Formats: sequence, structure tokens, C-alpha cells
Amino acid sequence: MIRCKLISIGDEILIGQIVNTNSAFIGEKMFSAGMPVEKAVVIGDEEIFLLDEFEDSFRNYDVTIITGGLGPTHDDITKPSLTKFFKDELVTDEKVLEHVRNFFAARKIEMPLINEGQALVPKNSEVIWNKNGTAPGIWIDKGSKVFVALPGVPYEMKPMMEEFVLPKLMTKFLKEGGKVLLQKTLHTTGIGESSLFEMFGDVNKLIGNNKLAFLPSATGVRLRMNVTGSDEESARSKLESMESRIREIAGDYIFGENDDTLEAVIGRLLSENGKTLSVAESCTGGKISSRIVSVAGSSDYYLGGVCAYSNQEKVRLLNLNEEDIRKFGAVSSEVAIQMAAGIRQSTGSDYALSTTGIAGPGGATKDKPVGLVWIGFSSAQKSYALEFHFGNRRDINIDRASQRALEILRRELMNIKIKF
Amino acid sequence: MIRCKLISIGDEILIGQIVNTNSAFIGEKMFSAGMPVEKAVVIGDEEIFLLDEFEDSFRNYDVTIITGGLGPTHDDITKPSLTKFFKDELVTDEKVLEHVRNFFAARKIEMPLINEGQALVPKNSEVIWNKNGTAPGIWIDKGSKVFVALPGVPYEMKPMMEEFVLPKLMTKFLKEGGKVLLQKTLHTTGIGESSLFEMFGDVNKLIGNNKLAFLPSATGVRLRMNVTGSDEESARSKLESMESRIREIAGDYIFGENDDTLEAVIGRLLSENGKTLSVAESCTGGKISSRIVSVAGSSDYYLGGVCAYSNQEKVRLLNLNEEDIRKFGAVSSEVAIQMAAGIRQSTGSDYALSTTGIAGPGGATKDKPVGLVWIGFSSAQKSYALEFHFGNRRDINIDRASQRALEILRRELMNIKIKF
Repeated sequence: MIRCKLISIGDEILIGQIVNTNSAFIGEKMFSAGMPVEKAVVIGDEEIFLLDEFEDSFRNYDVTIITGGLGPTHDDITKPSLTKFFKDELVTDEKVLEHVRNFFAARKIEMPLINEGQALVPKNSEVIWNKNGTAPGIWIDKGSKVFVALPGVPYEMKPMMEEFVLPKLMTKFLKEGGKVLLQKTLHTTGIGESSLFEMFGDVNKLIGNNKLAFLPSATGVRLRMNVTGSDEESARSKLESMESRIREIAGDYIFGENDDTLEAVIGRLLSENGKTLSVAESCTGGKISSRIVSVAGSSDYYLGGVCAYSNQEKVRLLNLNEEDIRKFGAVSSEVAIQMAAGIRQSTGSDYALSTTGIAGPGGATKDKPVGLVWIGFSSAQKSYALEFHFGNRRDINIDRASQRALEILRRELMNIKIKF
Repeated sequence: MIRCKLISIGDEILIGQIVNTNSAFIGEKMFSAGMPVEKAVVIGDEEIFLLDEFEDSFRNYDVTIITGGLGPTHDDITKPSLTKFFKDELVTDEKVLEHVRNFFAARKIEMPLINEGQALVPKNSEVIWNKNGTAPGIWIDKGSKVFVALPGVPYEMKPMMEEFVLPKLMTKFLKEGGKVLLQKTLHTTGIGESSLFEMFGDVNKLIGNNKLAFLPSATGVRLRMNVTGSDEESARSKLESMESRIREIAGDYIFGENDDTLEAVIGRLLSENGKTLSVAESCTGGKISSRIVSVAGSSDYYLGGVCAYSNQEKVRLLNLNEEDIRKFGAVSSEVAIQMAAGIRQSTGSDYALSTTGIAGPGGATKDKPVGLVWIGFSSAQKSYALEFHFGNRRDINIDRASQRALEILRRELMNIKIKF
């Protein structure tokens, strides 16, 4: 198996100003292509650190992918360090220079002169085209070793990785075939990690000599299955039989697989059935709506919603009964039901969801602690609300409430019993 | 300076299933405490990889912080590997066992038996209390070296890091004082990286022998300033003079510093002035609303909003003129202005924002390409809309439109000229 390493460059990652999403993206792509990353390293913007890591890479790994440090400013040192390491020189690439000039012209912005430096590349390298930005990527072949440098800006790096680097690496390294790795992830929600684990009983019996990882987050547990096989077919059949054993036991909690999101799954279910949705949010404040809208094509089934953050807006926008708010409080089963039924009737949607709760840190009373959320559901057949106690943190309460609301809708759409 | 290293454990990070936010969090905390992380490594769930990294840590670093692999399931190998590396043994900690039992009892959930393993800790270690979960952290002192193991779940790890690990590390390593490091970040929006760089002219003159990093994202550029000084006072004065030079040049684009978010800054401005806000969103679909509500205390100034995703809802919820939608199209200056003015009047808020645009990938026409967004603003004094062309990607268009809308409001609240 070829050995692959990632190097992310930038003090901003080490000191936590940005989160290293590039590493996650590249790791996933390399794994799926059968060239899993063995080690991912983050180092600061200092030439000495880069040269040390290049040395280790050259000695121990077949493929090294570097991200960051390719921009136009003074702290971008990847190109000069690579050039130094390989005893090469930087030369201007005229096609890149023209691309950089056109990039600014198309945006009707005058090109800052500093950008001319973007067109400098090591003489013994291949340019990787950057269609979403100005910094080119660099591909260096040195004997059997490959060094690839890509920009740190994710939407520039991603197409370069997918359209150039991956196919070229696969052609170079995977000619002879070899062991086939497959992985698949099942997304669950509404059940905790250890309850799920115990539900499975003897895990070794369930997974055989494959791998199964439990990956918990605040809104659910992902189950990642890894199998290896001598060929595609044997790996695929192992994976399928493990998956069916898992689904038999925990199927109701599994809402999707791999890149699925709960909002995308719901979108598919609504589209397939020609149904529409509206939302009335209080404590989630637009989170459910923005998750629904994050899915391309959501205008086909999502009519819209209201964020009724104040009681006055609850009454005005949702025709709520003021007397009921006074009697039961805004955070109550009655109000949650009226919110869902109200938005459904006024928009004419087939389904509606609502939330009202105390996200915190303020707003709690003796009977109504932080974390209490009522989630309402309404359809032509029925309207009801369920009570949840999520926790103490505002962001997690909002995330969990939006997740649970969407999961209630999924279960209703699929006729799965509502049980958390 | 003491040398610090992070080890994140988990195939799920290497293969990109989760993004390594723990590393960012710990990196920031350690840097701010004057113990910057020099290297951050991610490795898979295999004992051999852990033992190799422990070896490197023990040889080259003073402090090693490990996250992940502490859970109750079979793929959690940090405790056994540490125990093996230090030739120690695992013993049951009765207080931890009681905590784990109480944790489940409080949630009225029966404890899965497997959780008893959570109470096993290396004999020669100190337990780090986990108030948000069941897996305890581990602190190992071995001569002058420290190894710390923390759970991978962020909201469990964070308080353990802040309340136990950081103070204990500072007591152990920073007794004698030493060099003082300071850092501060200024957040800009509405201007590109290279334009900002050129605006500054001679950067060396601007920053002297300090460090300034440009950190671009889809919604703005952060400027991170790093200074070192022989004492707190000299470092502080260097930082302040660099900051004031930067603000003189680019002050209008700077909306906040360090942990500030644009939505939190706006919240402060609204609160201070006793003003209220409402929002009418189309293409941003609730994103602006959910950003506003993510700020604790937002119910003091945020009345609510509507997500009018269909034209019918625009008319119904916002009293829009149907004739105007037909004449100018839903994505138009006229409709954006009517949306903002409409929600402001109906909620009675002091200010209102609106968005209408084509987030993509579908929905474009010859005259109205993907990425076109009109952003509306309304106050008692004036209502207007501005046209933006963001790009091709749905998620980035939604992020940029919400950022620009909030920035327009910030500039209105601060009487800064609107110029992007």
C-alpha cells in the first residue's frame, strides 16, 4: 500500500484561528480512492519546519500533499521552501500570469501588483490550474515520490484536488490494482453511543474481521464501517452483509448514509411525495429554516417560515391565542401545537414543524429550566407537540432541537414510530 | 520556551469524517497561555501509531496533549496504549464509577454495562473530571514530561482543558515567567486579501519586527497580529501601536476582534442604542435570523423575521405588491426594498434587513445569473437595496449574502459609509 502524508501549513491552524477542514476533505478523498492518509501534520509558517517535514516525507512517504502558504503575501512560504528543498529555481509561468490578470479583469477590480508573484513556480514542476482563484498549485515528481502543493482556501483547493491531483495519483500509483478498501457511514440520531453499542450485543459477531467505529456528536452517532477485500466484489459483499445486520437492529435510528444530511433526506422524501413544508421557529431562531434551504432545490417543497422570537410576533404572525400564551406560557405544548398548526394553515403546506423553548443561558424559570424545548408537528391528520430536555449550552440546544424536529418529520414521512 | 505537541487520535479524522475542531480549540488556548503548540499530528486508531507518537513526544516535547480514543467502545485505545507505554496498569477509580452511574441516573436512562470500563484509569495518573460526560481525562507526570489525555467529544473536552489542564500546565511550566507572547486578531469584511495588503503599503514598516498574518475566508479576511516582548507591558505597547496603525488605514472594514462575530457586534450596537431588528429573508433562507439568534440575549433586540421562500409567501407575509413581483421579478431592487420596509412596518422594529437572490445551482435566467443577490435595508429614515454578485456556489452565496447584510446594518449603526 502506498504511504501518504498531509502537511497543513499555517500558524493560524496551530493557534486555532481556523479549523483544518482541508485535512478532512483530502483525507476523505484519498481514503475513498484507496490511498488512505497515514499521518496528517500541522506546522507553522517557518521555513525550518517545512524543510524538516519535507525531509521526513521524502524519506518515509510516497505521496505528500501540502496545503496553505501559496498566497500572495509575505507569510506565504510554501513555494520558496519547496524550491529550496529540491534545489530548484522559481520562474514566471506566462499562462498563469494571464489567468491572474483575467481573474481581476472579470471582477472589474484593478489587479494589485503583488499578484504577479502568483505566477512564479518551481522550474521543475507542473502547474495545477486554479479555476476559483489566483494561486496555482504545484505538482513535483522526484523519482518515485510525489509532492503536491495546493492553496489553503478550501473552495480553491477542492476542485484542484478532485479534478487534477486524485486522477493523476491514481494513474501513477494504482495501476496494478491491489487490495480494495471500502468504507460506508450510517448516520443515526435520537440514540446515545453506549445505548447503540449495547443494542448491538456482541460487536465482534456483528462485524467479523471488519472495522466499525462509533462517532458521536451532539446531534447523533455515526457508524463507520470499513472493510477490505481481495477484489471489489468480495469487499462489496462483506460491506453489504455488515450493513444489513446493523440495519436489522438499529434501522429506525438510521436516517442516512455517507454524505447525507438529515435536511437532504427530508428534502428527498418531500419531493418524492410532492408534499410541502413550512416552519414556525422560536428558540431555534431560523436554524431549521436555514438547514432546509441549504439543500439545492428546496424551493420545490419549502414554502417558508417565520421566526417568531417575541411573543408579540407569535401572536401576529401565527394567529396564536394570546390568552393561551398567558395561561400556559410561550414555552408549552399548547403554544408549540398552535405554532405548527398556525403556520401550516396560513401557508397551506402539507406539513409544519415548530419549536419553542429556553435555549439559555437566560430565560429559565423554576418550572422551565434551560434546555426545555417543545417541538410541534402538524399535518392534515394530526397536530401534536413533544417535550425535550437538551442541556445547558445555547448552541447545542439549538442544534439538538433543530435536529430532533427534522427527525420527527422524517419519521412521520416514513411511518416510523416516534420514540426517542 | 516549552515545547508542546498535540496528538489527535481517530481514523474518523484522517479519513475526513469529522473536522478536527479540538486541535483548533486547544491550539488557541495553549497559544494564549504562552505555551504555543509547535506541531499537531493526527493518527489512526492503531496501538503502533500511538506508541510511535508517544515515543517521539517523550523524546522531543515537554507537554503532549492527546484527544480522542477514551470512549467506552472497542475502538477506544488511548488508555490501554498509555498504560502500556508507561508500563503501568489499569485500575478502577471508585469516584469515577459513581459519577458514571449518577450521569445515567440523572437522565433516567439505564446505564449500559460497558460504561463501567470508563472508570478504569492508569494507576500512576491523576483523573481529570468530566462534568459533561462519562469518560474521565488522564494526567500523567513522568519526570519533567507531561502527558494529558482528553475525550474527543468537544463539549466534554473543552471545560476539562480550561478548568484543569491549562491552569495546571501554567503552574508547572510558567513559574519563572519568561518571554511574553501576545496575539490579537482583527476581523475585516467587504474587502479582498490582496486589496487589503496593498492598501497597507510597506508591510514591514507597518509591522516592524512583529508578525502579521492575512487569513482569508469566503466572508472576510482576518488580520492576526503576533508580538513578543520581554514583559507584559512592552508586548502590550507594541501590539497597541501596530493595531492603531492598521486601524488608521483599514478601520472601516474592521468589524471586530478576537472572538467577536459580526452578529455579536451588531447585537451589542443594537442593545446599547435600545434599538430593535427584524429580518425578511428569501435566498438566505433563515441564515441571517439563525446567526442573530446564536447570540445569547438576542431576544432583547431581535423581534423575529420571516423566511418568504415562495413568491406567494412574500406577498402574504410581507404585504408585497404582486404587480411589482410580476413587473420586476422577485429578485429585484424593488422587491428587496419592499421586503425590508414591509417587515419593519409589520413588526414595528427600528431596523430591518432583507435578501432576495439566486443562490443556485438552479433558478438563473439570462439577466439574473446565479450569485445575484439584492440586499435591502430599512429604517425610519430610509429604505434602499444594493446589488451583489457573489459567485457560483450555493453555500458560499448564502454565507456571503448573510455576511454582507449584517455588515450593511453594522455600518448604518456606526454611521460608516457603505462602500464595498
